[in-house]
This record gives sequence, C-alpha cells and structure tokens, in this order.
Amino acid sequence: MTAENAIADLRSALPEGSLITDPDSLQAYRRDRAEDPNAGTPLAVVRATSTEDVQAVVRIAAREGIGIVPRGAGSGLSGGSSAVDGTIVISLDRMREIRIDPALQMAVVQPGAFNAEVKSAASEHGLWYPPDPSSQEFCSIGGNVATNAGGLCCVKYGVTTDYVLGLTVVLADGRAVKLGGPRLKDVAGLSLTKLFVGSEGTLGIVTEAVLRLVPAQRAPTTLVAMFPTVEGAIGAVVDIKAAMRPSMLEFMDRVTINAVEDMMRMDLDRESAAMLIVQSDESVEIAAQQIEMIEQTCGMHGASEVYATSDPDESEALIEARRQAIPAVEKRGALLLEDVGVPLPRLGDLIDGMRVIAETRGVEIAVVAHAGDGNTHPLIVLDPTDAEQRANAEIAFGEVMDLAIALSGTITGEHGVGRLKQPWLADYLGDDVLELNLRIKRALDPDGIMNPGAVFGAL
Amino acid sequence: MTAENAIADLRSALPEGSLITDPDSLQAYRRDRAEDPNAGTPLAVVRATSTEDVQAVVRIAAREGIGIVPRGAGSGLSGGSSAVDGTIVISLDRMREIRIDPALQMAVVQPGAFNAEVKSAASEHGLWYPPDPSSQEFCSIGGNVATNAGGLCCVKYGVTTDYVLGLTVVLADGRAVKLGGPRLKDVAGLSLTKLFVGSEGTLGIVTEAVLRLVPAQRAPTTLVAMFPTVEGAIGAVVDIKAAMRPSMLEFMDRVTINAVEDMMRMDLDRESAAMLIVQSDESVEIAAQQIEMIEQTCGMHGASEVYATSDPDESEALIEARRQAIPAVEKRGALLLEDVGVPLPRLGDLIDGMRVIAETRGVEIAVVAHAGDGNTHPLIVLDPTDAEQRANAEIAFGEVMDLAIALSGTITGEHGVGRLKQPWLADYLGDDVLELNLRIKRALDPDGIMNPGAVFGAL
Repeated sequence: MTAENAIADLRSALPEGSLITDPDSLQAYRRDRAEDPNAGTPLAVVRATSTEDVQAVVRIAAREGIGIVPRGAGSGLSGGSSAVDGTIVISLDRMREIRIDPALQMAVVQPGAFNAEVKSAASEHGLWYPPDPSSQEFCSIGGNVATNAGGLCCVKYGVTTDYVLGLTVVLADGRAVKLGGPRLKDVAGLSLTKLFVGSEGTLGIVTEAVLRLVPAQRAPTTLVAMFPTVEGAIGAVVDIKAAMRPSMLEFMDRVTINAVEDMMRMDLDRESAAMLIVQSDESVEIAAQQIEMIEQTCGMHGASEVYATSDPDESEALIEARRQAIPAVEKRGALLLEDVGVPLPRLGDLIDGMRVIAETRGVEIAVVAHAGDGNTHPLIVLDPTDAEQRANAEIAFGEVMDLAIALSGTITGEHGVGRLKQPWLADYLGDDVLELNLRIKRALDPDGIMNPGAVFGAL
Repeated sequence: MTAENAIADLRSALPEGSLITDPDSLQAYRRDRAEDPNAGTPLAVVRATSTEDVQAVVRIAAREGIGIVPRGAGSGLSGGSSAVDGTIVISLDRMREIRIDPALQMAVVQPGAFNAEVKSAASEHGLWYPPDPSSQEFCSIGGNVATNAGGLCCVKYGVTTDYVLGLTVVLADGRAVKLGGPRLKDVAGLSLTKLFVGSEGTLGIVTEAVLRLVPAQRAPTTLVAMFPTVEGAIGAVVDIKAAMRPSMLEFMDRVTINAVEDMMRMDLDRESAAMLIVQSDESVEIAAQQIEMIEQTCGMHGASEVYATSDPDESEALIEARRQAIPAVEKRGALLLEDVGVPLPRLGDLIDGMRVIAETRGVEIAVVAHAGDGNTHPLIVLDPTDAEQRANAEIAFGEVMDLAIALSGTITGEHGVGRLKQPWLADYLGDDVLELNLRIKRALDPDGIMNPGAVFGAL
C-alpha cells in the first residue's frame, strides 16, 4: 500500500496540477537525452513549484522508502535522470525564476531556468555567466550544477563549480539547507557547496543556486583552421595551449565536419581530417597578436586553410557549427555519447586509440572535443534496430572509457556518470576512493532514496 | 601505556631524526601565528618526509586513539595548528618538493613547500600560480589548501580551491588516496578534492597537491588613492567593482596607514582616513583606460591624492606596503586577527559597525581589507599584559563576528575557523548545516582523531 499511500499524500500536500500519475503522461519523464533503453517507469511525476514542494515530496518518499529521481530539462547525456521503476520523479522544470543583483554581481536562480536564460538576464546588466555547455539553449542550471557542467569557454573561464557560491538543497530527510551564499570568500565549515556541485542528485536536490557573474566578455576574434591530419590539429592544440590562454579551443574530426556540413551548409572542406575553432577575447591589440600566433602555429602543423574573423555574427555562426555537432551527428543514427578526458599531452594517444577501437568493433566514432581541456566527446553512431551493431557499439563505449583510464584520464569530464557510466566508476576511482564516496553518500542519504542507481549503482 | 607504546612504535616506524619528544624542542610546535594562549603540549612531533611516514603515524595514532594535529609552516591565523595536550603533531615542513610540468601547465607540490616557492618555480616556465596570501613568503601550500587560502589577486583570479585539481590525502585510518588529478575537467564521482580543500586537517592530511598553473600575469599597473573619509574609499570600491574586474582592490584604514608608514617610511599621508591599492593587469591600452576610470571614480568619491605607476619595482613596493600591514600593526601590540567578510554592498556597514565596537569596548581596531571581495581583516590591538584590555578585546573579537553574521557575512573568508573561531561556527552555519558538516566529519573520521578541536570543537 506504500505506493497508494504516497500518491494520496502527495496529492494532498502539493498544489493543484503538480502531480502526474497518468501512465501516458508519465512517458515524457522516463528518459533524458541519453535515451537509456533500460529507463523505468516512475510511480508519479511531481512538477515542483517551490522548495517547499520538493520538501513535501522528499518527506513522503523518505517515510515510505520510495526512491526519488530529480530532473531538470531532461538534457542529460549520461542517464542521470532516467526514471527507475516505482520511484517519484521530481521535475524542476517549473522553477525558473532568475534574479540578478548587479551590485553583488550575482544571480539567484531556480534550477529549472535554462543556462541561456541566465546568460541573457545577466547580459541586461552588462554581466556574464560564463559556463556554456553546447546545450545552453535547452539545458537547465539545476542539471548544470548536478553534473558540474563545462562547455566551450571553460578552457579559459572554468566550469560550473567555479561560479557556484551558494545552494539551497533539500536533503534526503526533507530538510532544506542553505549552503554558502553571496560571499566571494567563505571558509567557515566544510566546502559543502562544492560537494553538492557534481553530485548528480545523489545527495540532495538543489532548489536554488547563487551564481557568480563577471563583467561582460569582450567581443572575441574567432579563428577556424582545417587540417589534412588529426595529428597536425592536435599538435597545434598543444602548442597553442602552451603559449597562451585562448577563450575557446575546439576540435572536430572529419565525420563531424561532414555531419555539420550536411546540416548547416557552411562550405566546410569535407576532405579535411580535422578542424579547430579557436577564440581570443583579449583586447583588440592582444587578440590580434594571439590570432597571428595561432595562425602561424596552425600553419606549422600543416593547416590547409586558416580563417579568422572578429565580426560578431560570423564568429557566432562558426561557434554555432561546433554547438550543433552533436545534433548533426545524431542525424546519422542513434548515438552512444562519450565524454572522456585526458591530460592534454595524451590527447593524441586518446584519439588514435579511439580510431583503433572504431575499426576493431566496426562502428563509426565521430569525435568532437573541448580540445584545450583534453576533454573529448566521441560519438558512437549506431542503427538502433541492428542488434549486433548495438552490441559492438556498447563494447566500444566501454573500451573508450578503459582507454581513457589507461591514459590517466577520466571516464567523464562534464556530463556526469549518471546510470550509463556507473559500471565503470569503480575501475576509474579504485576501491578506496569509491568507498570514500560511498561513506559520504551513506552519511547524507542513509536509506539510499536520492537518485537511486545513479553514479553509485545499488547501495 | 598508550603514549609510551605509541612513542616506541613511532620511533621504529619512522626514519632517523623524524621524531621529536624532547620537551624543549616540542615548544616550537605548540603554536601557530595566532599565538593561541590555550595551546597545549603534544606528546610528540613527527617531521614527516613522505606520504608513507604520515600513514605510519596515522595508523599508530588510530590504533591508540591518539589525536593528530597537522602543521605546515605554522603561519595559520586561526589556531588551526595549535597543539592539543597529548596529541601527535605531524609537521609537513620537510616535504617541500615542487615539480612543474610545463606541458600540462600544472605543479605537483608537497605540502611543506611555500606558496612563493611554487610561484617562483612556475615562473621559470613562464607560468603563474595565482593565489597570493600576504604571507606568501612564509606560508605553505599545505596550509593554503587546508584553509582554502585567498589573497590579493583573488578578486580577479579566485582562491586556492580554484587551482587545486588533485590531492593525495592520508585518511583517518592511515590509507592514502589520490583524489582528482592532472585533468582540467573531471566529474566522475563526488567532488572530494574540493571537499578536502578548506577542511583544515579535520578529514585527513594532504601530502601532495596537483595545482593548476596559468600563463604568466601581464605586468600590472598599480594605483594608490588616499581618502579623507572611509565612506569615500568604500564608495569608490563599490563603483570600481561594478565597472570592471581589477586584479587587486585593497583597503587600509588610518591606523594601518600609520603603522605601515612607521615601519616602511614611504611618505604615506598619515592624515588620510583610508587608502586604496588598485591594480589592472589588462593589456597596456585597456589597463590605461581602466586606470583612468579608477582615477575618476576615486576623484568623484573625494580622493585627496591619486598616484598610478606601471613601473614594476614601484608597483611591487606599493603592494609590499599592503602585504606588510599585519606585521606593521603587530608592532603596536599583540593582535587578535579577524577575517570577516560580507557581500560587497554591506562593506560600509561592516566597517562602520566595527568602529562602534572599537569605541564601545575601548580597543583599537585597525582595518585592512581585500575590499573587492568584501573580505576584511580587522586587527584588534591589545597589550597582552593588560588583563582587562585582553578581556575587552576578546569581547570585541566575538562582536565583530556577530556583526558580520548579522550583515549576511561570514566569520572567516580565508583564514579558517581553526580553534579560535570554533565557538562561533554554530551561530554562523545554523544547526542543520552544522549537523551536515558533522555527519561528513564522522563518516570520514569516526574516532575524531584528525585535528581534534579544530573547526568543530569536541565531537
């Protein structure tokens, strides 16, 4: 009777229209963008409108021992918000308030607000929220915080955690706590704010974030370089990174270039093996020097074509090509999305190794990368109706992570472990560090109700 | 017999010359720079030479239930490494190795290395480690990590945690774990690296850190402005911060100006109520624009004198005046050092309130501040032989923290809670967040042997 009791209690505790239990309507909340074929069906979905709503749900779930899967915009790529049978999905999609405090240079944001909406609200005050996942137009801040999301400008400006000063979190027992706050420096007590960033909903549910804003970015100069070899492009990345701090340093391989060209018709050279997109947002004079040095570096590494522009629209169009890389490759089939990263000097080895895996397993792997960070997104393309290909793709998916681990890299740089990468976490962390993670998980969520199965698997 | 067993076991487990038990020699390890009058006397001091040494000591201490106080350079200002009777002090002062990896743009550093030594090693490769506590010449990286230390350039470049990519930590059971590593993005598992930064030795002992380096800073332009009123200086701070991102924005009040002038003879105007030191490290052209705007802003807020220089030696001399502020004020008597911070718009209220506290309690409070961060260091000056003054100073010390809390501020921005501020932590965090801290403390150090009494008090 647990489920029925819970539903009845949820109905009376929540505002009208917040509770979804109709089987057809539940479908829309079963999967995130990882399209996990093993996603379950929740008991109910709650579309929360406030921290209090979230608390009410967690209290009922805790009492009945029911798991909770938090969900933002559903743009996650590791299955961190895939539903689990019999759980309650708490969707934060209706909590979208954004308050900008220009004097403090901070934003107070509810988790359902989209990343691009925060950027846009900040820009009205001449301010900037840097983290910029490619999905910025349709990913939520709550998800960004949950996965410590990165993006393109991280190579200069850091990742989400670098901008999170405070969080309101609903804990596993339904209490709401405020961690950190609108203070640039604060070392009183443990760094709990930072602990919750990247915890993928396994320790609590973020219902508000205090984000640091910075003055607006200068208009950047953008350079695109095409290379006949991947080695040339990677060599240029390493040399550029050693010489300066570009505000963007992105890589696309031939498959990706062609997929983007198919979708966007930008006259990209389809024969090129690799393309770099590099940006400098320094002052006009310094940017000009940097772009000249980047041109020379690309030339030295055999670039067949180099083009630079400081026209904002043209710049934006080039970056949009990069942002559309995943959707463009998605048109070729279903994707298994990777997110492995290595120390920068091992980037070439990683890409070489992935080529071998693709050949061995007979699958296509398109590679886009935040190359300056050593963070790559190999996209394994598959026909979902072809069982053998699917099996091979899944083997390749694991082998890419094994390869990254062997190169002192990580199994996920910015997308999170979610449910899809959970089986590899122990290999990556090792027994002692995994056990340390679990001690904290158990200390904060002793009954294991927060996002069960994500990151840590069954407890 | 616990103590004798432990000493015998330490002696056989450690390299020759690592163990100190002679009562006279122990004296030097009883206090840090906070000069806590309640510091105890340890059973023994171990001057570790390796992670393995630290593990050996922790294993013995854990077995015997003996507390451990970790210690870096002893420059802490909150009593975080004050000794406790009957404990073992682990001094990391002999572990000072620094390895720079220019291709990775990272430093691998042992905890006893001084901050300035890391900066210097990085600069040989054209690289820069930004965090710059005023004590950089004599504070250790281990202590910087333990307190998440800040400094002067944080207003633009962030604090220690922003540069820590990985840590080797000896846990309370003697296991050593590697958290994070040489990867710019890594979200696999909980953010344990960030949790250990700022944990003040209460969760484990850091024996190695992987630090992110960035390209060398451009030569900055430095501006000094003198103000007839504190209000004018604070008004300028708020306006400068709203308009740009300076690489330094420091404040000194009249008492501090005079103390520095007494010590350094720089021809500072002793009648001024406040002095700002502002820096821009943008390109020459942009820096010139910014400095002009800063000059105008200071003028609008009534500055009596404004002076700017891009001469590196002169710049450095001005900043050195600021770095020497605490030592200069120390010449006036013993100090109770504060480290309270508030959201920037409340900075004026904080300084006003401190003036009232000083008058009410009949003590002198000199104020230096990382003004751009809202982080202030009120220095309460006292004659240690005057019991009544000491009592009043201690009351004022608490009242300053109460004031900061009332202004939505923190009791410590960058020095840590240590032992001196521990009684105020509960007021600042509130019961729920304190309890959350304690759950993590207990999960990682169930017997409470790691830096007992620091941050959390008796468990």
